[in-house]
Amino acid sequence: MTGPNARPSEETLRDLLDGRWAHVRRMLRERLRGELFAPVAGLGVEEHRERVGKQLKALSATELPGYGFSSEYGGADDVGASVATFEMLVCDLSLMVKVGVQWGLFGGAVQALGTEEHHTRYLPRIIALDLPGCFAMTETGHGSDVQRLRTTARYDPASEEFVVHTPDEDARKDYIGNAARDGLMAVVFAQLISKEQNHGVHALLVPIRDAEGSPVPGVRIEDCGLKSGLNGVDNGRIRFDNVRVPRNALLNRYGDVAPDGGYSSPIENRDRRFFTMLGTLVRGRISVAGGAGNATKAALAIAIRYADTRRQFERPGTGEEVVLLDYRAHQRRLIPALARSYALHFAQEELVGALHDGSTGESPDEHEQRELEARAAGVKAVATWHATQTIQVCREACGGAGYLAENRLPQLKADTDVFTTFEGDNTVLLQLVAKGLLTHYRDAFGSLDLLGTARFVTGQFLGAVIERTAARSLIERLVDAAPGRSEDADLYSRGWQLRLLEDREKHIIEGLARRLRRAGSEDAAFDAFNNAQDHVLKAGRAHVDRVVLEAFVAAIDRCADVETRAVLDRLCDLYVLSLVEEDRAWFLEHERLTPSRAKAVTEAVNTLCATLRPHAVALVDAFGLPDEWLTAPIALGAEAARQEQRRGA
Amino acid sequence: MTGPNARPSEETLRDLLDGRWAHVRRMLRERLRGELFAPVAGLGVEEHRERVGKQLKALSATELPGYGFSSEYGGADDVGASVATFEMLVCDLSLMVKVGVQWGLFGGAVQALGTEEHHTRYLPRIIALDLPGCFAMTETGHGSDVQRLRTTARYDPASEEFVVHTPDEDARKDYIGNAARDGLMAVVFAQLISKEQNHGVHALLVPIRDAEGSPVPGVRIEDCGLKSGLNGVDNGRIRFDNVRVPRNALLNRYGDVAPDGGYSSPIENRDRRFFTMLGTLVRGRISVAGGAGNATKAALAIAIRYADTRRQFERPGTGEEVVLLDYRAHQRRLIPALARSYALHFAQEELVGALHDGSTGESPDEHEQRELEARAAGVKAVATWHATQTIQVCREACGGAGYLAENRLPQLKADTDVFTTFEGDNTVLLQLVAKGLLTHYRDAFGSLDLLGTARFVTGQFLGAVIERTAARSLIERLVDAAPGRSEDADLYSRGWQLRLLEDREKHIIEGLARRLRRAGSEDAAFDAFNNAQDHVLKAGRAHVDRVVLEAFVAAIDRCADVETRAVLDRLCDLYVLSLVEEDRAWFLEHERLTPSRAKAVTEAVNTLCATLRPHAVALVDAFGLPDEWLTAPIALGAEAARQEQRRGA
Repeated sequence: MTGPNARPSEETLRDLLDGRWAHVRRMLRERLRGELFAPVAGLGVEEHRERVGKQLKALSATELPGYGFSSEYGGADDVGASVATFEMLVCDLSLMVKVGVQWGLFGGAVQALGTEEHHTRYLPRIIALDLPGCFAMTETGHGSDVQRLRTTARYDPASEEFVVHTPDEDARKDYIGNAARDGLMAVVFAQLISKEQNHGVHALLVPIRDAEGSPVPGVRIEDCGLKSGLNGVDNGRIRFDNVRVPRNALLNRYGDVAPDGGYSSPIENRDRRFFTMLGTLVRGRISVAGGAGNATKAALAIAIRYADTRRQFERPGTGEEVVLLDYRAHQRRLIPALARSYALHFAQEELVGALHDGSTGESPDEHEQRELEARAAGVKAVATWHATQTIQVCREACGGAGYLAENRLPQLKADTDVFTTFEGDNTVLLQLVAKGLLTHYRDAFGSLDLLGTARFVTGQFLGAVIERTAARSLIERLVDAAPGRSEDADLYSRGWQLRLLEDREKHIIEGLARRLRRAGSEDAAFDAFNNAQDHVLKAGRAHVDRVVLEAFVAAIDRCADVETRAVLDRLCDLYVLSLVEEDRAWFLEHERLTPSRAKAVTEAVNTLCATLRPHAVALVDAFGLPDEWLTAPIALGAEAARQEQRRGA
Repeated sequence: MTGPNARPSEETLRDLLDGRWAHVRRMLRERLRGELFAPVAGLGVEEHRERVGKQLKALSATELPGYGFSSEYGGADDVGASVATFEMLVCDLSLMVKVGVQWGLFGGAVQALGTEEHHTRYLPRIIALDLPGCFAMTETGHGSDVQRLRTTARYDPASEEFVVHTPDEDARKDYIGNAARDGLMAVVFAQLISKEQNHGVHALLVPIRDAEGSPVPGVRIEDCGLKSGLNGVDNGRIRFDNVRVPRNALLNRYGDVAPDGGYSSPIENRDRRFFTMLGTLVRGRISVAGGAGNATKAALAIAIRYADTRRQFERPGTGEEVVLLDYRAHQRRLIPALARSYALHFAQEELVGALHDGSTGESPDEHEQRELEARAAGVKAVATWHATQTIQVCREACGGAGYLAENRLPQLKADTDVFTTFEGDNTVLLQLVAKGLLTHYRDAFGSLDLLGTARFVTGQFLGAVIERTAARSLIERLVDAAPGRSEDADLYSRGWQLRLLEDREKHIIEGLARRLRRAGSEDAAFDAFNNAQDHVLKAGRAHVDRVVLEAFVAAIDRCADVETRAVLDRLCDLYVLSLVEEDRAWFLEHERLTPSRAKAVTEAVNTLCATLRPHAVALVDAFGLPDEWLTAPIALGAEAARQEQRRGA
């Protein structure tokens, strides 16, 4: 254990956190300043949209929008930089989301699903914001199950056009960003029908407004109205009444229709084609995880700085009131959450790197792509739930002051709330992670047809496959060096910790596979899966926890400064031990921990909170969120000033 | 176990839930209708305040404001009815809070802390809303530690006046409801100083605005500005610059100053006097718990009705999509929360009853009064955290629709958020509960000076005292009839369940007492208490859980209808078993459950969710929240209509 003497270097921490796209982050800290980008609370919906529109316009004049696009069309071929940019827009999360809609979802879909003709024609205008657009996937009736969207795009060979149609209210496009006010065009996801055959969901470019901003004939647009937060984003509903678009409106990279209506695709299997198309959306999920991460860091920076200043109740006999962060209960609320934010930050960094590297190669390895998608889904779910929970805790930790708009927490909370829902509902995403793990398991050990008949050739399992995602050799070395599953292993042994989380993941997946294997008919298989749903979610969660720990371990390995590293080591201990504490019922039930060892974990969490408490402010300052983005007076000295005035009085 | 055939009678349930003040609830369901009381979202701050002002005015013309006041001054001497009224104001929680400020806190303080002169002069005007007022206790620097408020009221015998003064920014009154716009007068809590002696915190009536609404000389008022929610309430800050008020401005029931400055009080001990004064505030805490309860019920009604209609993902081979509430994960999110809402409802009903009965007797028994205060503090903490958590879960369970203002969840969430903070920060309140339990323990077993020197005469503990709060003889009968702490006891045995929670509470308190007893000096005692803070909070929580269970058991005993009772029995099983599941790490660590039995608890929770699922809608409908208060289209048929339109198409 590190004594209280080790002091982290803020600069070293900052560099480590800023990571590969440090130059982008540094530049944004300088650029996103001044009145235009200052967070403001209490704007009316129209005012807020107007303001975000101006901010977006200002950004469009810079190189930022181009990061994620091909250099052929004025971009920079730097997907990592585009995600880093998105993450940094915490000055107003409405701007963050609006940027994501225009250049991530809309522009990203044109780039990923379209072909050269679309790129040449649209990308420069999209980048320049001359063509504001929407990503019209979700329908009122189908948000999670997008394979069953019901908007249709029926090909008419006579006119060589597609007829885009909304059959009923259930099929209207809903919650679509950029739709209520600004969008001129939309990437519309619809069932592609040609020659009376349905080829599944495809995307088409459909104009929705004319140059004057009025809906084009056949298109009806409705405003979603006031939302819990993100009111600077103009979400709307769109209905199509037999709207005709030319044949080349189809984004035809993964599926095309010939003039005579003949359908062709480089991917034969319809499901595989659909999931390949969806896979192009992985960037959105990664971005949301990162955005949630930075909003959480902002909340922690506010709450921890305040807790380090604010006093309440006298320490008997001293005449001095106790600083909030010296209370154990307060430490327990904030410091484990801080540790988890660090851990998730490094997992995010790994994800962005993998996304970026995958985007630069010609065609990414399919297995790696699936793995990235699963990891993105899992980290998105965990990071956004962490945001919701932590920002709430921060609000409460700041008491009545945390409820005032001036202290920013209300806005951070309201804006991030929907992050657990959009870009994939978290509950659905964690199931997706678990399904991926089961598929992987099946590939390694035999057939396991999840929703069909489950048949295993053998009853003998060697254990689920643990695939390491970061610093493979380092992690393996640590795990191998750890003592066995012994009562005596040091709770602070990284190898033991890694093995503990690996073991939990494997055990849960194996148990799940066994459970599902028992199911017979298709009907029974569905029920088996549904009855195991809590087990399924737990599998996804256990996987993400382990992957995140590996990323944290790998990051610490990159830190050269001894004292900073020592503090990060304790923070990593706290991350993993607070996870173990939270789930110690499982470890007890499965005899991975004895009762006395479980109690020792709780004690260790308490000790670590106290050890890290003196570094808490340095650890949040290292996030590098400028005061101009935090704005909260309680985090910027107001409380300290009051106490000084009082002492002077 | 009840089969799926038992069907609860909604009428029986409603009557049981409506309880002793059913007539008030029924009347309010009829009265709070029409345009004036319809929930509206998206109002600007001024508009919202204006609207709430009108609603308040309308209520002031009825008998409602008088419920909590003495019949001598035009009231009804019916405290229970006043709390029931507060609870029912879910049509707009800003109205709820504004009612609480005017007639609960302000009027309540004048009644409880003042004497006949104040009552005669002010109560009729307060009831009629001719004198809108504030309860100015909290200061910027002191919210939880109100004993150390720093506003002063210095007696000047020359003029027979008090001089009320704010020494610095730390001492300004903050977050005060009714201050920013409407209040003409404030009950100001200040250190009472006479003849250079400080007699501790007392309350005085201080005019803050003249009849035209301008602040009176020496009073500065500032608006707290936009808040996360409750923007219909005009919270503000007040500073006093040597404001003079006559001697009789002192609310002098518990402490008086003679013309010459001599101080007298019926309660000699300063601390006891202070806590007696604070004890009069118990009604506010009980009201907040009830308000949080009804907001939670509204959220559950919206989310469960939607979950019972909304479909997503096809059940393989059927062509039918699955209703959300048929998914286990969805059941697990909503149905245990529903069970807890029922349990808390009955605990609340007990509390209101005890408050009411205590208010009608001459002078309540001091022990009973302390017990009521502790229980109110504990239930307030648990009920408001339950609200924050459950409303969040409901929002997520409704996906994107839950994020739209029209579906009410955003407002319920934003408004109730501060309930965990005001009327006592929850973390502080739970510690108060635990301290009460320890005091009780000490009274039974010997000296335990908590924050001073801890000394115990004997090392032998017989066990903490479990004091039953509801249906004593019934609970005792059940506990006595239960088998011992055996592996074979039926998980559904009520006696076993009761004993399990009792045993946990006793064990935690005994352990805590032992831990604190070890501390020697005053300084060490503080550290011991701080180091045990997580243990302290757990003790408070365990106590509340048990008290709430007893209230649920007592309520079921009042239900005569066999089928309804059977369903309530299962709901009570779910309440207690989901608590046990949540805390099963503790039961495992302390060998109260074996691993296999802990797993059986999880299984039982799953089974109970499935058993109760068919009754979920009936159970929320029984809350009796009119559709006009819910307003959410997704809860009132919009989703069903879309699905029908689709089927017809």
